[in-house]
Formats: sequence, C-alpha cells, structure tokens
Amino acid sequence: MSIKIGLLGFGTVASGIPFLLKENQEKISAASRDRLEIAKVLVKDDEEKNRLLAAGNKFNFVTNVDDILSDETIDIVVELMGRIEPAKTFITKALEAGKNVVSANKDLIATHGRELIKLAQDKGVAFYYEAAVAGGIPILRTLANSLTSDKVTRILGVLNGTSNFMMTKMVDEGWTYEAALAEAQALGYAESDPTNDVEGIDAAYKAVILSQFGFGMTIDFDQVAHQGISNITPDDVSVAQQLGYVIKLVGSVEETESGIFAEVSPTFLPKSHPLASVNDVMNAVFVESIGIGESMYYGPGAGQKPTATSVVADIIRIARRIKDGNVGKPFNEFVRHTRIAHPDDVKSHYYFAVNTADEKGKMLRLAEIFNSEDISFEQVLQQKANGETARVVIITHSLSKTQLANVTEKLKAVADFELVNTFKVLGE
Amino acid sequence: MSIKIGLLGFGTVASGIPFLLKENQEKISAASRDRLEIAKVLVKDDEEKNRLLAAGNKFNFVTNVDDILSDETIDIVVELMGRIEPAKTFITKALEAGKNVVSANKDLIATHGRELIKLAQDKGVAFYYEAAVAGGIPILRTLANSLTSDKVTRILGVLNGTSNFMMTKMVDEGWTYEAALAEAQALGYAESDPTNDVEGIDAAYKAVILSQFGFGMTIDFDQVAHQGISNITPDDVSVAQQLGYVIKLVGSVEETESGIFAEVSPTFLPKSHPLASVNDVMNAVFVESIGIGESMYYGPGAGQKPTATSVVADIIRIARRIKDGNVGKPFNEFVRHTRIAHPDDVKSHYYFAVNTADEKGKMLRLAEIFNSEDISFEQVLQQKANGETARVVIITHSLSKTQLANVTEKLKAVADFELVNTFKVLGE
Repeated sequence: MSIKIGLLGFGTVASGIPFLLKENQEKISAASRDRLEIAKVLVKDDEEKNRLLAAGNKFNFVTNVDDILSDETIDIVVELMGRIEPAKTFITKALEAGKNVVSANKDLIATHGRELIKLAQDKGVAFYYEAAVAGGIPILRTLANSLTSDKVTRILGVLNGTSNFMMTKMVDEGWTYEAALAEAQALGYAESDPTNDVEGIDAAYKAVILSQFGFGMTIDFDQVAHQGISNITPDDVSVAQQLGYVIKLVGSVEETESGIFAEVSPTFLPKSHPLASVNDVMNAVFVESIGIGESMYYGPGAGQKPTATSVVADIIRIARRIKDGNVGKPFNEFVRHTRIAHPDDVKSHYYFAVNTADEKGKMLRLAEIFNSEDISFEQVLQQKANGETARVVIITHSLSKTQLANVTEKLKAVADFELVNTFKVLGE
Repeated sequence: MSIKIGLLGFGTVASGIPFLLKENQEKISAASRDRLEIAKVLVKDDEEKNRLLAAGNKFNFVTNVDDILSDETIDIVVELMGRIEPAKTFITKALEAGKNVVSANKDLIATHGRELIKLAQDKGVAFYYEAAVAGGIPILRTLANSLTSDKVTRILGVLNGTSNFMMTKMVDEGWTYEAALAEAQALGYAESDPTNDVEGIDAAYKAVILSQFGFGMTIDFDQVAHQGISNITPDDVSVAQQLGYVIKLVGSVEETESGIFAEVSPTFLPKSHPLASVNDVMNAVFVESIGIGESMYYGPGAGQKPTATSVVADIIRIARRIKDGNVGKPFNEFVRHTRIAHPDDVKSHYYFAVNTADEKGKMLRLAEIFNSEDISFEQVLQQKANGETARVVIITHSLSKTQLANVTEKLKAVADFELVNTFKVLGE
C-alpha cells in the first residue's frame, strides 16, 4: 500500500516535490506511516507531455484531469497550476470526488477559499494550503497549532519577495523604483506585468488568509486596502533613514474594538524592529499577541524547494490523518463571526510629505490644517527650501483612518500644498 | 465535563496559565473541544498555601503530590517546579499513574528525557514540553509538524536570554562582561550564581532537545561542548565589529557525514545574518535545511506569559488528542540511530586572538604554526604593537575540530605566544 498523489501541473514548484520525496524518503515515509507515490501528473497537452518525457521525467503524465479525478486509488490531489481557472473547477471536482486537496494557490484561496473550505468540510476531506502564505515559512500551521492558546492582536508581514527585493535595493543602495523593477525583472523575480507584486495585491491575498488563521475571521479580498511601492521616491527613502526608519511593503491585520482591519501599505519600520532587517526576497510574519508578546517567523516566501516543502508537509499531515481516521478536520478550526473595524478605531502614526511654495506663513497654514483635525506632530522636517519650493515632512502622533481621510481631503483642497506621499509609520 | 489539570508548582510561569485560560477562554475551549479546569495546585507547604489564599488565589491548593496523582478525575499534570528533584520523581509517578504530563523543565528533559519519554510511550500517555526550548517560540512543534517534509542540516540558536541581554550590552554599548552581569542581576535576568546562563549550560540543555526534534537523534548532555561568555573582552567585541561581525552566544547542532555535533560557544555572526539582530532577552532558532533553505523562529525565550502560552498550547493539544483517542502519540516521532560526528568532520572558521612580544619574526613563527596544521588565514589584524607586546587577530579559513585542538596545543606549548581567545566564526 502507498498513499497515491495526483499532481495538477508540473511547473517549478511541482518538480520540487519528487526531489523532497527522494532526498528525504526515510523521514517522510516514517512521518506518513506509508510511502508517498506520485501516481499521475496532469499537464496541458501532448506537446508538454512529450517534452517532459523526453527530458527524462519518469511520471505517468495525463492530459485529461478526469484521469486523476476518476482514479479511485488517488487519495490526494495537489494543485500547483496557479490563477483562478481552471484550478478552481479542478479543485471543486476533486473535493466533490472525495479527494483530499493541497494547494499553494493564494489568489484562488483568498478569493474563493470560503466555498472550497465549506465543500471540503461537507465532503469530510482535507483542504490544506500552507504554501499559499509566505512559501516556505510554516506560518499557517503554526498559527493553527501553536498559537491556539494565544490571542493574536496584530499580524505584520513582509509577504511579497519581489517587492521586498526592490525595497531592499531602494533602501540599501538608493536605487529608484524604476531601476529596482528593471533588476527584479532581469533576475526573473518580477513578471513583465509586475502589478500584483508591486501594488500589494499578492500581499493582500495573503493578508486575507492570515486573518482567518490569526483572528478566525474571513474577510473579502476587496476589504483589504492596498497601496503599492511604485510612488516611493529616493527622497522618501532618505528621509526615512534620517529619522531612523526603513521603508518596507507591509501587510497588516489587526483587531480593534469594532472588528478587524487589513491593509497592505508601504510602512516606516523603526530600524530596530525585527521586520526591518528582513531583506531581499525573504519574507517574515511578525505576530503580536497577549501571550507570547512578539514572535516572528522568517524564511523564503517563494521558490521551488521552499514551496514544495510546505506542500509536502501538508501531504504528510493528510496521509497521517487518513491513517488516524480524522482527515476531515479543517486546516484552520478557529472561526468567529467576522466584524470589520470602524475607521475611527484603526489608528497609526503617519508620514506626510508635502510640497509647498517657500513663503512665509505656509508652515503655519499647514499646522492649522492638521490641528483642525486634531492631529499632532511627532517630528517635522523642512527640506529643500530653495527660495521657490519647500518640502515639509511630518511624522504624526497616532491618528485614525477617519482623521487621515479628512486631513488628506483638506490638504488636497488647498492649492498651496501638494501632498506627495502618505505612508504608515510603525510606532516604537 | 471538563479536562482537569493538576499544577505542580505555582511560581511565575504557573500563575500565567489562569491568565490565558481566562483572557482567551472562548478560543481555548473551542480548540480543546472542552473546558480546561485547574483542579488542584501543589504547593510546598501550608505556609505557601495560606500566603497564596490570603493573596486572593482561588485554587484548590494541596501540599501532598498524592492528592493530585491519586485523583482519577485529573487528566493532565503540569510540572513547573524546575530543577531535577522532586520534579523527576513526581513526573515519573504521574506517568506511571497514567496521567498526561506537560513540563517546561529543560534541565530535567535534557538529562533524563529519554527515560521519561519511554515511560510515557509505555503507558500510552502524552509527555509534551514545548516551553522547554526558547520559552514562547513554538519551535519544537514546528520542527515536529511542519519540518517533517524537510531535512535539517544545521540548527543555530540564540537560546539563552540572560546571556544575550549581556552580549547586547557588551556589543552595542561596549560594556565589560562584569558590568553586563551586574546589570542582568540587578534586573533579575541573572541569578546570583549565573553559571548556567553565562557558561552556556542552559543553552546546551536546549541543544540536546533540539537535536531530537531536528535530527531525530538523542545525544547526552555531556556530549554537548559548552563555552561561555565570561572571557569575552571589549577587545574581542571591537575587533569583531571592525571585521563586520557581532559576537553572540550560539548553540549549534549540525549533521556531518559521520554523525551529529552539538556545542554552545561564543560565535562571530556576520552582521547581515538574521541571528545577528536578535537582541536583549529575545531568543531565536535559525534552521538550515535542504527544502526551506533558511528559516528563523524568533520570540521571547522566557517570561511568565510566553512560557505559559507554550504550556497551554501543549495542554490544548493533549485535550484534543484525548477526544480523538490518540493521546499516546509521542511529541516527537522522528527517531534515528544516534551517531556522534568525528572531530575531523566538524568544521568552522575560527577567530584566534594571540598576544606576543612585539619582536621581529613573531608573525612568521605564528604563520608557521598554523601552516604546520594546514590552516590558512582569511583575515589577519595586528593591533597594539606598542614596542613591547602585540596582539595578533586571525580569522581562519575552515578547519576541523581536530585541527583546532592541534593548533591550540602547539600555540600553548610555545612560550612566545599567549592564546587569549578562540571563537567560532560563521562563514557567509
């Protein structure tokens, strides 16, 4: 007997699975209490199949998903195709056929996870997706298993390797956004259309999934505000450094009195904050909680072997639960009624970069606008007063999303001021 | 019905347990599928009992352990007394009585864990101890559950908060060892006899436990070499900084061709290494593996609430397994035949600080000694040539423990040289 696996897709991550099964055979078999066997692999068409066979891949390649779905000997279907369709249809059919499913598809899980999770529960099968958040970092299982005793108050994450690689170049080496993007594309980290990575969409998918495991609440993808890194300038970066901060694209999920709030945004991190030294393509999830206090989980957010490691950990867990007769246990059992925070309750320090004419009284006017919204300053820096224009940089004390919206509107309404950038600042 | 718990000891950590059970009641009950109830608490004597009752603690305090061991309604015994005896006797009796046991006692588990684990298995009960390594960091369960698919090649850990606090003062603020120790004692981080913390003994206990979870091998405590921080001088610290390193007390467990090797020693970490920015009393475990590559788990290594969080996570897991009927599963299922590495196979870069008379030919003589052991230099720095004595600092290329022992012996045999310090250097 062995546990038989059907792979949907044979791209980079999928081909890391046979590597682990071979290199780590003894440990994996012992943990699974059985041998794991890749029984069938779905590929797109005969051309891909022939190419893979010619390259020496000794798998049973099939081109029709039904060859896997109708194969009663297959226990676990592993979806590694990415995107929404046909992955969604295939996973749905697999769950309906009573198969356990492992997926690394964050886009799909963040947007259609709710129905897939429900279907898996109805069918009494497993639907696991550790690899969907922060690739190789075992953060979902850790939240589900180890932080059960704790109450999470906020999760902050460097969740996208591509944008973090770019921010590292921009911060450590003073590169422009454009130069960093060109390098990320040259190295294959960024796609030709980099929108998902640089605009925080990919990180927002992960924030949706983290909110389920950390807070027991399911928010919709479009409830996660996201702001990208494309308008961060070398000026912003150097001011941040001057004031003791590092800018990174940070996904955050926090619980306030009225509910949870999730967003992805460029964030000023104090240099001493553990997330501030997470560089290049690495990811990290920083968890604030009433018990542990502060903990951080760091590792590669993507890549063949790290992602495959998370996928195989899911497979092993399913294999064990098949033996134990409790495979229907949901991946995440922590479920509460979802409440979304009121903007009045969501608070942060903020950075404002404002251009203004270098004239007497402008600073007073600016101070009046902030004061009218009850916002006080923590640090103020006036730069580039060249007789014509001046740049004023403000770090505020804590203010709410409501105050932020109001002051932004007021600043935009006044012709004297050009609001260049507004970023979150993590207080110490 | 509820799951009934007997606490052995009511010190700092123990009193964090009711805090979590109360503050996080809903989530914990949902995860446990039951209410957790502290049924009895063992204290030393009537004096302690009366003092705790007078302070408003509303528990059923008992002074005879048999009141807990013979109580058939108690499912889980939580030992938080510390030290070897009477903890060992009480845990043994509890396991023999068929009770599940949770402990945070690293000293005991590192030195007598083997027999206690075997007894628990024979009796078909649980014996969990997540809190024994790195307090609040859920590292043991993560190694057991998530890294099952991976093959760990090396674990490096900042495993002792007290010594890390001291090293942070010595590195960031240039304090002497003596000043750092006095401050740690004043803040209550270090005991009046600080030996266990500053000589690497506490970290060595944790290395023993990590080697079980990471490598499946059980080594004896006395097989873990340990070197402390007491002879690190401000000179060492400043040379390290000059060369781009930070010195920390690091526990390491690695697997070589001939077996595993564990030690605790002051280690030069490249400034860019994730462990290098783990400061103050925080702990971190850095894992190198063939799948994930590099991952790190960071958090508080001690403290009431963090440690209690790990203890309660163990309790919840046991409660669930009682319901699922598989409570006898060992905490760590990864077991291999233990092989200890041959010293020839254990390799590292090293730092040597050598004092010598400031005379012609000394440097040549020193180079000859290293050359005779086939050791080559990566960096050499001569300091303080004041006409009388010179300090020569050498960072070597990789050498084995055998070479290290040989060259150390040769240096000691030559009256011209005083070998001041030898520390490991983590290569980039």
